[in-house]
Amino acid sequence: MKTLLLVAHGSRREGANREVSLLTDTLASRAGGHFDKVSCAFLELAEPSIADGVNKLVEEGASSVLVLPYFLAAGAHVASDIPEAVDACREQHPSIEISVTPYLGTSDALPNLLINLALGETAS
Amino acid sequence: MKTLLLVAHGSRREGANREVSLLTDTLASRAGGHFDKVSCAFLELAEPSIADGVNKLVEEGASSVLVLPYFLAAGAHVASDIPEAVDACREQHPSIEISVTPYLGTSDALPNLLINLALGETAS
Repeated sequence: MKTLLLVAHGSRREGANREVSLLTDTLASRAGGHFDKVSCAFLELAEPSIADGVNKLVEEGASSVLVLPYFLAAGAHVASDIPEAVDACREQHPSIEISVTPYLGTSDALPNLLINLALGETAS
Repeated sequence: MKTLLLVAHGSRREGANREVSLLTDTLASRAGGHFDKVSCAFLELAEPSIADGVNKLVEEGASSVLVLPYFLAAGAHVASDIPEAVDACREQHPSIEISVTPYLGTSDALPNLLINLALGETAS
């Protein structure tokens, strides 16, 4: 069972965490054929943690977990905190393939998305 | 002169701020016809501030500044800090049209971008 785990920073504002949950639902609805399950986890300030998120996917039958860092820049969270958390998950689940995608900020599609966002607003 | 100001959080890691500068250069190269100039500013931890960024654009001849919040969630920065900074800019430059786009996290194009990012990685 192939799974995707969207990892966000987490916020003290519940609304911000809920945005991540809703985005995860949208990803799940569009990921058919590529991922059997899509979940989210948070680095801090919200639940579940990366470890808890991976544990739950493994309990549910995941054979692989692809971690997608929902971060814009390669700060300490992307450079150190997420890799360390993922390494700990690999030690705990040696038979599960756990990999990490490039973080969102590296996407080549971001500039055009931003221009479209700007043009949508100026047109309104 | 129509201008676009990408507003990012700012980081203690210079590399993260440089990513925003490089993204701004890319936006500038693709914004031809829509914006005469594209700059970036930072909410904290890096320069220029939003006020300094707007001031510079106005000095260079901007008649309008469209602020694009480069943020994924509606935390306090998006909900309060950026609007307050923008209001202060409007008071300082009453003849300039200063508006704010929805923040990046609201883009309808994000889910597909994330799925493509995930699939790119699994294919590699």
